[in-house]
Amino acid sequence: MGTTMQAYDDLPRNKANYAPLTITGFLERTADIFPHRPAVIYEDRSYNWAETRSRCRQLASALNARGLGRNDTVSVLLHNTPEMLECQFGVPMAGCVLNSINTRLDADTISYIIDHAECRLFITDRELYPIVAEALETSEFSPEIIIVDDVNAGTQPDVPTALVDYERFIGAQDPNYTPPPLEDEWQAMALNYTSGTTGRPKGVVYHHRGAYLMGMGTAASWALPMHPRYLYTVPMFHCNGWGHGWTMALMAGTIICLRAFSPEKFFEQAEKHNITHFGGAPIIMNMLASAPDDLKPKFDHTVKAMTAGAPPPASVLEAMAHMNYEIMHVYGLTETYGHVLLAAPQEEWRAKTISEQAELNARQGVMFTNLDGAAVIGEDGKPVPHDGQSMGEIVLRGNVVMKGYLKDPVETEKAFKSGWFQSGDLGVVYPDGYIQLKDRAKDIIISGGENISSVEVENTLYKHPAVDVAAVVAMPDDKWGEVPCAFVELASGASASEDDLINYCADNMARFKRPKKIVFGELPKTATGKIQKKVLRDKVKDLT
Amino acid sequence: MGTTMQAYDDLPRNKANYAPLTITGFLERTADIFPHRPAVIYEDRSYNWAETRSRCRQLASALNARGLGRNDTVSVLLHNTPEMLECQFGVPMAGCVLNSINTRLDADTISYIIDHAECRLFITDRELYPIVAEALETSEFSPEIIIVDDVNAGTQPDVPTALVDYERFIGAQDPNYTPPPLEDEWQAMALNYTSGTTGRPKGVVYHHRGAYLMGMGTAASWALPMHPRYLYTVPMFHCNGWGHGWTMALMAGTIICLRAFSPEKFFEQAEKHNITHFGGAPIIMNMLASAPDDLKPKFDHTVKAMTAGAPPPASVLEAMAHMNYEIMHVYGLTETYGHVLLAAPQEEWRAKTISEQAELNARQGVMFTNLDGAAVIGEDGKPVPHDGQSMGEIVLRGNVVMKGYLKDPVETEKAFKSGWFQSGDLGVVYPDGYIQLKDRAKDIIISGGENISSVEVENTLYKHPAVDVAAVVAMPDDKWGEVPCAFVELASGASASEDDLINYCADNMARFKRPKKIVFGELPKTATGKIQKKVLRDKVKDLT
Repeated sequence: MGTTMQAYDDLPRNKANYAPLTITGFLERTADIFPHRPAVIYEDRSYNWAETRSRCRQLASALNARGLGRNDTVSVLLHNTPEMLECQFGVPMAGCVLNSINTRLDADTISYIIDHAECRLFITDRELYPIVAEALETSEFSPEIIIVDDVNAGTQPDVPTALVDYERFIGAQDPNYTPPPLEDEWQAMALNYTSGTTGRPKGVVYHHRGAYLMGMGTAASWALPMHPRYLYTVPMFHCNGWGHGWTMALMAGTIICLRAFSPEKFFEQAEKHNITHFGGAPIIMNMLASAPDDLKPKFDHTVKAMTAGAPPPASVLEAMAHMNYEIMHVYGLTETYGHVLLAAPQEEWRAKTISEQAELNARQGVMFTNLDGAAVIGEDGKPVPHDGQSMGEIVLRGNVVMKGYLKDPVETEKAFKSGWFQSGDLGVVYPDGYIQLKDRAKDIIISGGENISSVEVENTLYKHPAVDVAAVVAMPDDKWGEVPCAFVELASGASASEDDLINYCADNMARFKRPKKIVFGELPKTATGKIQKKVLRDKVKDLT
Repeated sequence: MGTTMQAYDDLPRNKANYAPLTITGFLERTADIFPHRPAVIYEDRSYNWAETRSRCRQLASALNARGLGRNDTVSVLLHNTPEMLECQFGVPMAGCVLNSINTRLDADTISYIIDHAECRLFITDRELYPIVAEALETSEFSPEIIIVDDVNAGTQPDVPTALVDYERFIGAQDPNYTPPPLEDEWQAMALNYTSGTTGRPKGVVYHHRGAYLMGMGTAASWALPMHPRYLYTVPMFHCNGWGHGWTMALMAGTIICLRAFSPEKFFEQAEKHNITHFGGAPIIMNMLASAPDDLKPKFDHTVKAMTAGAPPPASVLEAMAHMNYEIMHVYGLTETYGHVLLAAPQEEWRAKTISEQAELNARQGVMFTNLDGAAVIGEDGKPVPHDGQSMGEIVLRGNVVMKGYLKDPVETEKAFKSGWFQSGDLGVVYPDGYIQLKDRAKDIIISGGENISSVEVENTLYKHPAVDVAAVVAMPDDKWGEVPCAFVELASGASASEDDLINYCADNMARFKRPKKIVFGELPKTATGKIQKKVLRDKVKDLT
């Protein structure tokens, strides 16, 4: 016994039994099988899957014809329009790397990205052309610029007549173009810059294998039906729109585009296209829940939504449940292609009250199927006890963790040094194995030697009926080192004083964690609805 | 332009961003997240996912403790009981290769398999021990034998007292055992012998990557919900039970085991466990549809079923629809891990009559998401026109095509020579891209120089109300070379003469294709419900 059989290893890969995993296969298959089903709808424009494939092939053909291929960067600055979906497939199909840029970035940062990414071609919405032009003034690279002209965009800036229009760029190409086949599933296919807390943004590189498994894992863990109708409220530049374009191709779904979000627009499109799925930051959920009732369409099916960024408060979950929306709380980072943890519901939760359910759903949860491991590691490098108390760093590993940071071996090494991807987020693990995010490592408030989680203070504030949005940051303090300072938006028509809220916190959590100051007023937010804590930290400096 | 950026390639795999794809990950994740949900139910025995994982780990530990690991074969001869599921995970977890043997095979063939597979350990149901003992008398290898003792099996044969009982084999092991991690997703993990038409059976080798993608692809293309309840009517020895054990682990489902199929037993278990999914050969569907109504439980949800082997006749589809069962027709071979094509329903089919739907569903269809390509290739080596007429060989390629045939470079080379896996099945492609199986290459009847598809003749016979089961084979004929001969089982209480059926065929298909002879009586079937055409071909020789 014990001599293993070599014959099992004598069966190599060949063209028949091995294919690199790639999301372009999702598009090819769905266009073959469901050619006439709508792929993407944007206002009065729509393309079915056959048309979408043709346009993606034409885009790939145009890129290859320009001499662009493997490891060449194509940058895009686009809103959620059909062209963005076409770039998500057409650019990787050409072998190139899709670099989706956040539409809210300043010219200086865009200029940095163009040079760092060695951008070869730049596709921009006409509305955003001025900032691209400004960025190019200071950049070393001068990529060709392609203009997407959106008739739904309203008044548009002028662009130089020499610039090529997107429709003209792809229009001359063969809709049956077959690009060179992908040889290596580890090949780069997307590049997304993280906003960065200090210094320059880092370029997160994705590969084909990871994108494929992101789509497959989402279909399995979200238990998607065939032909979902997905309203794209999440910006598609962010983690390639959390991969939902890929996933919708896999499930032969329909994507409904929104150029800009408003509750009115959301409900109008949701009703018109009888949507089944969408996603959005908690701020989006909040806006939907608190919209006037007469705006809200009645669905006779459950609409499923993913939310991330902060735990959905009980009041929002309850309001959404009354609207027949089922919210799934997920967690992810740019470095993980988007969502990789979910607060997977357990059957026994159904018997609980809505606020108990909200507590359970407020946790970031457990792995999606595409992840290989998720843990919370203490300072001793070991997993923390599953007691819901002991804090450590959330670490992740698996095929949907990035290749690394482009041209940044130091940060790449730092991110992977433990054999895990170090998220930089702090969390705890409950006895049932569900992870809860307590804070970004940099958001922890250290007060008199005690750690105070800003997220915990925020969650307490959110439970106060008058609070609509809350954010807590550290405020320098002579005695304690740091103390919590809260920034609060009150709910429409509600009122509460600074003392009311401080006392409420003192009564509902460990007293030392209560904020020492409350600042009322609208909070600064990013394009994705995230509160900009950096701005608040700067404000705090002026307060003290 | 055109100089690609090397930096994209300078981001290698590491422990954080790469994990070999393996189905043992499905089990680990589900046992972590849904430990208390039932994994497998068999009569009055059941194990939840935590218990199932513990038992699989114990099995892996027992194998590793015996010195068995990578590329060592563990053969099993088991019915659909929880131990079979444990072998499906525990054996690959140990790094070994699971060789599931068909329980209906003769001792001589089992002996051949033991030697060819270089079997290191043999796990058998006590009922099947006598044939294993007989097989071992003539085999060169003498693997250790482990006995699964099933209290539900009725009278059982004696076994030598020296043989180790399965519960004792795994019982002493650590339920928290961590086997050495898988290094290579291309590593062999299963070995299934095809029945073989001539000569010895061929050993089809599966790898971890393929099994993982089989599970993922099934979840996506069957659009599985979370927590399906799957009644395992398909034998688990056949293509590892079409991978449904893996898929149920992925979706945290529940497997309900049947040691032996009968309509009574099926309906009893289906109702008791409120099943959502099952699978079975058309003969199984037929038996269910024609069972007495008072046996049939009323479901308030749609029960979904996969069927393969022959197209489901309209009458059966209609009867199943009335019972609230939705049948999906699929196609696959041992060489493709099971199902890889499906008659994916199109929305517009719903408006059609049940018999039109049956015609559409009678086709083998289009690719599952885990396949990379499916085509029908003519004698000129090119794809046939999509006209529903032109016949060619069905060829397949992708990650769920086998590694190859064990120790058989000649057959492996033959199977892969075109860059596709050559299925040996003949088919056509319709204008909508759906493939229809017309015949096994060896089942084609060549009559006066014309090809007659035996499947086409069978499908015509199935439309006759008196016909319950039909099989057509070639009968030697002095004038025509070959002519079709039909073997028919009449429906209970129905009657039809030989002339009735021949005239019916002449009226409902090209006249020259009509059978020249009809033989009435029960048809010989395999363990999986397939009609044994080989036996019928032998019978035909006696008729002429």
